[in-house]
Amino acid sequence: MENSRSKILKILYNSPEQWISGEEISHSLSITRSAVWKNINLLREMGYSIDSCTKRGHKLTIDNDILDEFNIKHGLRSEIFGQREILVFDTIDSTNIKAFQLATEGYPEGTIILAQQQTSGKGRLGRRWSSPYGKNIYISIISRPFISPMDAPKLTLTSAIAVFHTIEKFNISNVEIKWPNDILVNGKKICGILNEMKGDSDSVDFIITGIGININQKLNEFPEELQNTATSFEIIKNQTTGRVEVIKALLENFEKYYKMLTSGNFEDILAQWSAKAQIVGKKIKVQQLKESFVGTVKDITVDGNLLLDTDAGIKEISSGDINYI
Amino acid sequence: MENSRSKILKILYNSPEQWISGEEISHSLSITRSAVWKNINLLREMGYSIDSCTKRGHKLTIDNDILDEFNIKHGLRSEIFGQREILVFDTIDSTNIKAFQLATEGYPEGTIILAQQQTSGKGRLGRRWSSPYGKNIYISIISRPFISPMDAPKLTLTSAIAVFHTIEKFNISNVEIKWPNDILVNGKKICGILNEMKGDSDSVDFIITGIGININQKLNEFPEELQNTATSFEIIKNQTTGRVEVIKALLENFEKYYKMLTSGNFEDILAQWSAKAQIVGKKIKVQQLKESFVGTVKDITVDGNLLLDTDAGIKEISSGDINYI
Repeated sequence: MENSRSKILKILYNSPEQWISGEEISHSLSITRSAVWKNINLLREMGYSIDSCTKRGHKLTIDNDILDEFNIKHGLRSEIFGQREILVFDTIDSTNIKAFQLATEGYPEGTIILAQQQTSGKGRLGRRWSSPYGKNIYISIISRPFISPMDAPKLTLTSAIAVFHTIEKFNISNVEIKWPNDILVNGKKICGILNEMKGDSDSVDFIITGIGININQKLNEFPEELQNTATSFEIIKNQTTGRVEVIKALLENFEKYYKMLTSGNFEDILAQWSAKAQIVGKKIKVQQLKESFVGTVKDITVDGNLLLDTDAGIKEISSGDINYI
Repeated sequence: MENSRSKILKILYNSPEQWISGEEISHSLSITRSAVWKNINLLREMGYSIDSCTKRGHKLTIDNDILDEFNIKHGLRSEIFGQREILVFDTIDSTNIKAFQLATEGYPEGTIILAQQQTSGKGRLGRRWSSPYGKNIYISIISRPFISPMDAPKLTLTSAIAVFHTIEKFNISNVEIKWPNDILVNGKKICGILNEMKGDSDSVDFIITGIGININQKLNEFPEELQNTATSFEIIKNQTTGRVEVIKALLENFEKYYKMLTSGNFEDILAQWSAKAQIVGKKIKVQQLKESFVGTVKDITVDGNLLLDTDAGIKEISSGDINYI
């Protein structure tokens, strides 16, 4: 979006909290002073916090948290993820549904879909994901790893590790991974991840990693039935967190661990994952599509599956929902 | 399509090769004699072979091979596959692309996509599948098995067994399965299968089974580079085969083995598959996305993978392209 509006935004961004005269902007972009004013007003309508003063000019207050391509790309230290198109929707059924559709149409690896609000947010096992307006992060990432579909489940643990480090970066402690890829803080759910794939027997076409992280949602803004089991950055820190900053950190972490995975270094991810998940030795119940198992976790396999010691012998578990018992 | 045209077709179908008077048809459908004539002419334009004679009436010659929903459903002994919608396209990019799109939109298990011709027919490993007009079968089947994505590769072998039995039913011998799911006759390729899946870590959303079977394509109608390696019903039997009959047999066989798979009885499919594929003990080269292996096949695992005895030890191979060496 290299129009005048985005050029003005870039100028203001490069000197945040400093006055820049309308004349200077008008001169450097070769547009009229009234065009500058018009565009500044448009930016303000988009939600940017810009002060204007006839004598001094304009300045951008960097406490705004507008989800848009410019804001997210500004200073983003990644090479792929977030560096392609970033599509931001106000209201959408589900970012994963949209991303799957765009990936089917050929959108490249690194494309990002964001929404302020989802009307049919999807969780694992067909569950709904509560998605109120403007509070949290609802993001879907398109990747096209050159791997066999048998290796696709590894991205489940990889994305969990990326989110884990993103949350810790914001000075939140007691972060824990619940197998396979829910993220808990103080034992309550702060993030859910849903990886959806298109592939054939030989290779993966693409994977959509859908991530929902509760950021500024207050306790009383959660549905009542979730208030005992869910949490957010706001609940933990008792203050607002900029979603754009979290998204940037998430994209950088996702890229870092994704590159580890695709370069064949899943062992390091798995080692980290095992350390965070602390599931070995625990007694759990696993609920799958058709059956459930109770047992003690003996080990994690090289593929990230659980080896469960049950009454009927050792079972290898690759998916499902677990409860500690 | 319960319009007059399809009702007339049904009447003719119920007494094939027999004259039925225009008056009788006009009476039983409560339409005029001229409406009967009009619809008979439309059917003829669609390709149905209908004789008409002023004194005697109309009769359907059952040597026609029109791909349409009515023809395929007529006498089809299945409960799911082919009993939902059957969409027939004249020219389409690829039946798998269309089926994937329809399944994403929610089309149910059992939906069938057919085409007279594909402009971008897809084979395994991103290869093209030669798809000339009106000669062969290009079909995609939507299934929604209630299985873990780890079990999805089993449908690869299951679909191969269904095609195997379909071809044998038409008195073709020397049929052989080339791992994982190419079908050869006299060592030449007669069928390719491409299974594409949408799923998440916990479950399969749908699988598209795309099957291309060479039926009435003559040797000189194949691209020159394929003439030594491809074959068809026509080349083997030196006569034309009705595609509709093959499609019916295919849908019935697909359903039979699909039900075995989803009821948890993959062992029987695998046992059959192993008997047909005769790969154990053979020395092969496997070409995968990134690497290739040479070795002797020791065994087939319970998941349908190859256990390959290589210089570097036993390797389990779940996908790839093989050559006997």
